[in-house]
Amino acid sequence: MAKVSIVMGSDSDMPVMAQAADFLEEMGIDFEMTIISAHREPDIFFDYAKTAEERGVKVIIAGAGKAAHLPGMCAALFPMPVIGIPMKTSDLGGVDSLYSIVQMPSGIPVATVAINGGKNAGILAAKILAASDPELLSRLKAYSEKMKNEVVGKAEKLDKTGYKEYLASMKK
Amino acid sequence: MAKVSIVMGSDSDMPVMAQAADFLEEMGIDFEMTIISAHREPDIFFDYAKTAEERGVKVIIAGAGKAAHLPGMCAALFPMPVIGIPMKTSDLGGVDSLYSIVQMPSGIPVATVAINGGKNAGILAAKILAASDPELLSRLKAYSEKMKNEVVGKAEKLDKTGYKEYLASMKK
Amino acid sequence: MAKVSIVMGSDSDMPVMAQAADFLEEMGIDFEMTIISAHREPDIFFDYAKTAEERGVKVIIAGAGKAAHLPGMCAALFPMPVIGIPMKTSDLGGVDSLYSIVQMPSGIPVATVAINGGKNAGILAAKILAASDPELLSRLKAYSEKMKNEVVGKAEKLDKTGYKEYLASMKK
Amino acid sequence: MAKVSIVMGSDSDMPVMAQAADFLEEMGIDFEMTIISAHREPDIFFDYAKTAEERGVKVIIAGAGKAAHLPGMCAALFPMPVIGIPMKTSDLGGVDSLYSIVQMPSGIPVATVAINGGKNAGILAAKILAASDPELLSRLKAYSEKMKNEVVGKAEKLDKTGYKEYLASMKK
Amino acid sequence: MAKVSIVMGSDSDMPVMAQAADFLEEMGIDFEMTIISAHREPDIFFDYAKTAEERGVKVIIAGAGKAAHLPGMCAALFPMPVIGIPMKTSDLGGVDSLYSIVQMPSGIPVATVAINGGKNAGILAAKILAASDPELLSRLKAYSEKMKNEVVGKAEKLDKTGYKEYLASMKK
Amino acid sequence: MAKVSIVMGSDSDMPVMAQAADFLEEMGIDFEMTIISAHREPDIFFDYAKTAEERGVKVIIAGAGKAAHLPGMCAALFPMPVIGIPMKTSDLGGVDSLYSIVQMPSGIPVATVAINGGKNAGILAAKILAASDPELLSRLKAYSEKMKNEVVGKAEKLDKTGYKEYLASMKK
Amino acid sequence: MAKVSIVMGSDSDMPVMAQAADFLEEMGIDFEMTIISAHREPDIFFDYAKTAEERGVKVIIAGAGKAAHLPGMCAALFPMPVIGIPMKTSDLGGVDSLYSIVQMPSGIPVATVAINGGKNAGILAAKILAASDPELLSRLKAYSEKMKNEVVGKAEKLDKTGYKEYLASMKK
Amino acid sequence: MAKVSIVMGSDSDMPVMAQAADFLEEMGIDFEMTIISAHREPDIFFDYAKTAEERGVKVIIAGAGKAAHLPGMCAALFPMPVIGIPMKTSDLGGVDSLYSIVQMPSGIPVATVAINGGKNAGILAAKILAASDPELLSRLKAYSEKMKNEVVGKAEKLDKTGYKEYLASMKK
Repeated sequence: MAKVSIVMGSDSDMPVMAQAADFLEEMGIDFEMTIISAHREPDIFFDYAKTAEERGVKVIIAGAGKAAHLPGMCAALFPMPVIGIPMKTSDLGGVDSLYSIVQMPSGIPVATVAINGGKNAGILAAKILAASDPELLSRLKAYSEKMKNEVVGKAEKLDKTGYKEYLASMKK
Repeated sequence: MAKVSIVMGSDSDMPVMAQAADFLEEMGIDFEMTIISAHREPDIFFDYAKTAEERGVKVIIAGAGKAAHLPGMCAALFPMPVIGIPMKTSDLGGVDSLYSIVQMPSGIPVATVAINGGKNAGILAAKILAASDPELLSRLKAYSEKMKNEVVGKAEKLDKTGYKEYLASMKK
Repeated sequence: MAKVSIVMGSDSDMPVMAQAADFLEEMGIDFEMTIISAHREPDIFFDYAKTAEERGVKVIIAGAGKAAHLPGMCAALFPMPVIGIPMKTSDLGGVDSLYSIVQMPSGIPVATVAINGGKNAGILAAKILAASDPELLSRLKAYSEKMKNEVVGKAEKLDKTGYKEYLASMKK
Repeated sequence: MAKVSIVMGSDSDMPVMAQAADFLEEMGIDFEMTIISAHREPDIFFDYAKTAEERGVKVIIAGAGKAAHLPGMCAALFPMPVIGIPMKTSDLGGVDSLYSIVQMPSGIPVATVAINGGKNAGILAAKILAASDPELLSRLKAYSEKMKNEVVGKAEKLDKTGYKEYLASMKK
Repeated sequence: MAKVSIVMGSDSDMPVMAQAADFLEEMGIDFEMTIISAHREPDIFFDYAKTAEERGVKVIIAGAGKAAHLPGMCAALFPMPVIGIPMKTSDLGGVDSLYSIVQMPSGIPVATVAINGGKNAGILAAKILAASDPELLSRLKAYSEKMKNEVVGKAEKLDKTGYKEYLASMKK
Repeated sequence: MAKVSIVMGSDSDMPVMAQAADFLEEMGIDFEMTIISAHREPDIFFDYAKTAEERGVKVIIAGAGKAAHLPGMCAALFPMPVIGIPMKTSDLGGVDSLYSIVQMPSGIPVATVAINGGKNAGILAAKILAASDPELLSRLKAYSEKMKNEVVGKAEKLDKTGYKEYLASMKK
Repeated sequence: MAKVSIVMGSDSDMPVMAQAADFLEEMGIDFEMTIISAHREPDIFFDYAKTAEERGVKVIIAGAGKAAHLPGMCAALFPMPVIGIPMKTSDLGGVDSLYSIVQMPSGIPVATVAINGGKNAGILAAKILAASDPELLSRLKAYSEKMKNEVVGKAEKLDKTGYKEYLASMKK
Repeated sequence: MAKVSIVMGSDSDMPVMAQAADFLEEMGIDFEMTIISAHREPDIFFDYAKTAEERGVKVIIAGAGKAAHLPGMCAALFPMPVIGIPMKTSDLGGVDSLYSIVQMPSGIPVATVAINGGKNAGILAAKILAASDPELLSRLKAYSEKMKNEVVGKAEKLDKTGYKEYLASMKK
């Protein structure tokens, strides 16, 4: 039974949303993933958001761009946390998506992550579930350790090779 | 039977929305006016927007601030024109409301007017109805004439008094 | 006799304006289309805008970029609805065009759509005409149904193939 | 034992942070509240954030303004969800706070709410806890119902009095 | 015969425009001043702008706010320099006015000054005329000398009193 | 003897500045052109700006990017009009250059044109000179006529071929 | 002999600049303070900036608003560190000042602090001098300790009184 | 013993940070360079920043992008000057990085340079050290002379070849 539901308004958002899915998979968290436009098929959207709770969903991750209404409308209909991902846009860089998602009125919060922050949305969903799941929390801590070691590894490489060689190796 | 429906998400938008109502009244256009939050009462909102057509509504004027979803969700459910008014906000000046209303995805336009542009929303609604109502079109032309005469009157006053006296009279 | 007039200030706007034209054609709405610069040929522009009503035009769609004056000046001269399309600009992303079109003073509204929103301008023009044309309204509803089915089809594909295969198929 | 920890960098943020506290109290959720500057007392801050888990904290709510580092540094040290509140600033309106909180790098999400969104931060914290607490979820649903009824009440008042009287009553 | 024509779209711009007039008066330059809205009375505006040359006008100073079309439309019709003053706006601070005036398309420049820069518009007009008027140029140089002496006077006061007393004297 | 002096802070601005030069050449106006950095060689810059008047210069065109000080410093030293061209920047699109040039303090105006508006700077310089040169004014009017005819030609082509063929011809 | 020179373009910047002076005084650092406009008195400014080194100045603190050229021009003429303070502006909030100061071209850095960051400019100047002055460094560390204790004191008060009483005491 | 420490949060910042290193090398200043993420390895970061003073570091140069906390957290822990470099970002152009670095709260300044200003950070570090190192100051002055000569060389080339040939030679 899916604990996290990933939803996007357009399949052009898929590359960003897939990063959330990849992380949930890595953490062993069941999720569902679908494409629903709150604007083009409001009835289907309503049904999706209102039945999410009974399907067992605990967190929704919603991504959208421009006048991004999908995350906010999910938050209007689903009683547990909704994470919003503002998509980068070609004209305004995504500041339109960001404002449309984060500036929610009092009463209906959306937990907003960075523009194109697909992976961070996945991590945040896992952290929310980990608040009541010690075993998952351990896996998240192990993941943090792994991230740390990657940076340490880079620092060691820089220390060994010097910055000029490091830079040259990046350009290859 | 109301031809125009004015809807706002919060009664704090009333001073701006009332400007639209005042203009419609001046033009003799029947309208209804209500407060519905797409976020706090999505079921009531859905019912409102889906039944507007059968109530005889031809144009919806929707005002909202911050992550303003009301106009866009109206446009998803109502098949005729929706006019959106972005409310000025105390922190971002209304650029958040503007982006959330105007940057609609392909397929679902919202006819957006200026920030706090309540009167212009009323005028735009009247112009839309006037496209098939010659009598209303005449009243709109008369209104334009009136606006023109007001400016002419100010120019004449300036010409007569000089700018120093004009400026002094403004400060009184 | 053209019911919609599409006008742009420069032929560099043609790719966006053609999306409006394509939609009007799909809906069977007569339109005219021309290139007129309010800045470079103000006399021709004045004549165009002032005679539009007697040519039978009910809606003008005007696109312009940067300090975009064309839609607003149309609205000053034509008594029925004017739809403005802000063009994306290479330096400011189109926020200059957007402000120059949407922030009209009280009395002279322009129905503004999204940056580069050519198709939405066409749809909005059709919705305006549909307010007094039930047959056109039916065609618009059928179009909405088609849009909805496209999203449903994508959701079904995602459900069947899984997101990894879906993503891979997008990159092909 | 406090399940939510509310932290702010300066007591000037107190009026906004108190809204979060008020909501948690209303929902019967235990919380702690303190003032710690990550910049002025980094050692105390480190100790606070690293021991939060062992104190039983499940969610941190951190508010900060300008180059707001507090929420992001909490997220670097605390393994469960961190909610960030960007404070409105007198010069840039809070867009500086917002960018400094929401644009976190991959790996370290902060669940960002609206500028000055103290109440929404409290609600989001409650929703996170409710994902594993059905009883709390019921209280949240009752709260949503209450919000809905408030809007319905306003709509009924508007319907009864008309907008002119409604507007007049607001100005009193 | 007026060499400079000062025009504004609304008398609310008068306090800023009067600064231009004051400076022209101080320099002994003949000017005319009027209120004409390009949007509300396009015919009167066209006539004004097209006949300015034959009235002997060498420079137009045009001020406007929001979607500020007045300076650009003057530049489309008047063959000599047009100076544009973007008015501060209550919601966007005047960045809308600025973009609408400065981002003119190729072929039709507007000499743009700072937001609310009424005095600088007057000075710029004088500098333009001074390019062919040595006597006026001398008066402008004398004015620059006066400005310089004012700053020198303040520096001397600061040097004499110290900054604490200076600051205290400012608060009186 | 050069009447217009074109100056840029870096030769990377040359492609934009050359557009100003090309226009001046087309109008038969003598100009000089140089590269001087107010930041890197302030002494040379001071000498350049202070001697411009005695070299016979009537207008300076200065282009600069980012924290663009060159136009404003020219205006501090040269008593006749200075035209500023804000260069597009790779990170902020040129809004940094624009603000650094247009937002001059009271007393020292810079006649600012659009971002990358090299040609418009040339035209504005010509218009300034034309205020006292009827023969040049005639050439400017002829140039305006030429611009108008180009647009008319495009409109005729569109009218003849239809927009689909026009669009196809643009893509070739 | 003054080690730090504080300079502002207008005495309206005095309240912010005085914060820098107050801090330097508290640290026992000799400073001079003056008002010089790079725009209105470029000769005086040049002389000031070029002779600063021989007067013994090691750091310049320059504050300016709008198209703020003073810090950058100091950096062009003075070979040691220049600290720039962007002034808040009434229309653009100070983002114009910020861009004009921080976006300096390669070769001429200005050490920029926050908008209206007078005190931080003073602290930064002290830190620069402390890099070669252990005794001053000790005083700075003591100051940091004092700042830390102030926050600790507030946290203790909050802990003792509870947030409601704390908030009430702030409003008194 | 390194007098300057260069630190970045991610090796993707290396191309910009290397410009600082190159300049320090050119000036003969000892520096260390490392990669440390304040977010991913806060313990290592704390240790790094707290021990920098005892390692002999006088200036830290820290580069970071998006919600850039590294420079500010360095400034919280290291008592001498910290220079911050805001990285350009693909969505917001670097304005997010800039605000996150420059808008530091009172008490904790970061000496901020331009977006991607790696070289300027190196120059600023050298200027800080030169405030107490006359020999280094001489090398900096020689560098300034070299920069000046490069511009002079370009001006001479332009003078000799004319702008058309100069432009053509740039495109090769």
